[in-house]
Amino acid sequence: MNWENNIRRVVPYIPGEQPRDKDVIKLNTNENPYPPAPGVEKLLKDFEKATLRLYPDPDSEELTKALAEYYGLGPSQVFVGVGSDDVLAMAFLTFFNSDKPILFPDITYSFYDVWADLYRIPYKTCPLDERFKLRVEDYKQDNGGIIFPNPNAPTGVFEAVEFVEDVVKANPDVVVIVDEAYIDFGGKSCLPLLSKYENLLVVQTFSKSRSMAGMRIGFAMGNEKLIGYLKNVKFSFNSYTMNRTSQVLGVEAVKDDAYFKACNAKIIETREWMKVKLQELGFTFPDSLANFIFAAHESIPGKVLFEELKSRRIFVRHWDKPRISDYLRITIGTKEQMDALVEALREIVTAHR
Amino acid sequence: MNWENNIRRVVPYIPGEQPRDKDVIKLNTNENPYPPAPGVEKLLKDFEKATLRLYPDPDSEELTKALAEYYGLGPSQVFVGVGSDDVLAMAFLTFFNSDKPILFPDITYSFYDVWADLYRIPYKTCPLDERFKLRVEDYKQDNGGIIFPNPNAPTGVFEAVEFVEDVVKANPDVVVIVDEAYIDFGGKSCLPLLSKYENLLVVQTFSKSRSMAGMRIGFAMGNEKLIGYLKNVKFSFNSYTMNRTSQVLGVEAVKDDAYFKACNAKIIETREWMKVKLQELGFTFPDSLANFIFAAHESIPGKVLFEELKSRRIFVRHWDKPRISDYLRITIGTKEQMDALVEALREIVTAHR
Repeated sequence: MNWENNIRRVVPYIPGEQPRDKDVIKLNTNENPYPPAPGVEKLLKDFEKATLRLYPDPDSEELTKALAEYYGLGPSQVFVGVGSDDVLAMAFLTFFNSDKPILFPDITYSFYDVWADLYRIPYKTCPLDERFKLRVEDYKQDNGGIIFPNPNAPTGVFEAVEFVEDVVKANPDVVVIVDEAYIDFGGKSCLPLLSKYENLLVVQTFSKSRSMAGMRIGFAMGNEKLIGYLKNVKFSFNSYTMNRTSQVLGVEAVKDDAYFKACNAKIIETREWMKVKLQELGFTFPDSLANFIFAAHESIPGKVLFEELKSRRIFVRHWDKPRISDYLRITIGTKEQMDALVEALREIVTAHR
Repeated sequence: MNWENNIRRVVPYIPGEQPRDKDVIKLNTNENPYPPAPGVEKLLKDFEKATLRLYPDPDSEELTKALAEYYGLGPSQVFVGVGSDDVLAMAFLTFFNSDKPILFPDITYSFYDVWADLYRIPYKTCPLDERFKLRVEDYKQDNGGIIFPNPNAPTGVFEAVEFVEDVVKANPDVVVIVDEAYIDFGGKSCLPLLSKYENLLVVQTFSKSRSMAGMRIGFAMGNEKLIGYLKNVKFSFNSYTMNRTSQVLGVEAVKDDAYFKACNAKIIETREWMKVKLQELGFTFPDSLANFIFAAHESIPGKVLFEELKSRRIFVRHWDKPRISDYLRITIGTKEQMDALVEALREIVTAHR
């Protein structure tokens, strides 16, 4: 029996650990420490259960409309999907269809090369500079498309809208995708560029700033033509993806803007406080405008810090990769969680002196 | 600006219409006319909203366990996804990786050729016989994999487990996928074959018999090795797909077996009654073991019937395709809905005499 000969074999991605224990301090997957908007609870209670027997609206019209209105766009400028991973994978498939390599940073979100391989898209990575900044000239070479997160992950480094405009303007023949998963924590969105450039696609998510990682909602914004192509590809092979509860709860999360802004402000405040504490403890880090800080200690290796924190039931993220193996990516939690983290780090740093 | 040159252009799939009016009788997408299990309502009411800020369990462990237990399998023999479309697409990508063409019927579920095209899998369709049955000798030629629904869609025709075994046995070098979306309406699942054959994958869904099309839950069952390959491919490019509400509600639907069986029995009873009525009205149809009947009238063209029913606010499914353009695919609804359909058909048939 040789059926195994024809199987696609891959190295599975290992996501950040999802410990089940409630007593763990979980700062490893950039989730929001605050619950979703209060209205979400009421909606779940009143959910018309009988509708679950019916397929969801394939267009997620209500959610699309709510997002379009919120961002001052037309409904045909918004595409929603099952988390931004789904949206980005679909965008790779739709827009990166050239024989030339697409470009993205060498240190960046770990799924870009995975999707490129999956869809047989050639790619080339561009090294970040010594301060973990993107170098604009790298993105002016011949290419089949460009993608980068802004702020970048896992560095947290934000590039100004002028940088984005420079790249988009220099590449009129390809689509430039800006992955703004972390834009709501102090960065400035490049959305205003949509009215000037046809080749720009902006992707955002409900998983971070909208406290809904558990609901899997992501979305892309661009001009009508761009979004139309994306929808055609999506509908050509799967009509029904986002389920009814996500469609309904997503609308509610967009509506409650005051709550959204208050949570983001709290996270920003905690982050800025944490930066001071980290410096006091001997850490350095590129300045972050995300809901995490990417920090390295002056003398203790990243792997050691990671393990020591884990033994104290505090989970952060660490990669055994060139250039970044001494860094920890620390999600900004509640003030109480960060107090506990600072205490633990103080112990570890003291013990290693 | 030439960015449009590199875009993937496709013909978008047109799903069955999803009319929003509540007064419509919707018999066009094979949804279940009964609501999900009563326990689902309670779960939604009591849902721990704060957990929505966290990513879902990537393995959907609770749901996987519930399904494994229900079907008498080990948890490592079950893979869950966002509807069976998601599961099937992933199975195509994982298992149909040969240069030889995969085989499926010429009249069948309309996404098989779409996924084959998407993943550049060569394929060959095998014509159904004049009674819309699969011909076993067609599936004994050299191939890179086999897939068919059982019962087949849109015909509703069921092939005996012996037929499935014959095909699986004759093809030890490839994976055979049996898409049992409609198996709970009187057909006999080929699941018992899993203990005898390594190369069989059985796919089922919550969208039909479990009244949860709106939640997007599908699953595959096979031996550990087969399921392991499928998981590796899935996790290699998207860790978090099924959201938290689907994971929780899905378990509840599996638990309430009495409700599940009672709903299916009602649908079967209504279908058998409907067969008699259709015959009285001059329709012919292959015998169906699904939650729909694929019927053609002795003198009125399918398109005419479709339009006439639509003008009476009754939606069924019709395809303008060779061999089946005179057929309507009629979902089995409640007895009341079918009464209204019979009444409407009687009017139309009388007017066309």
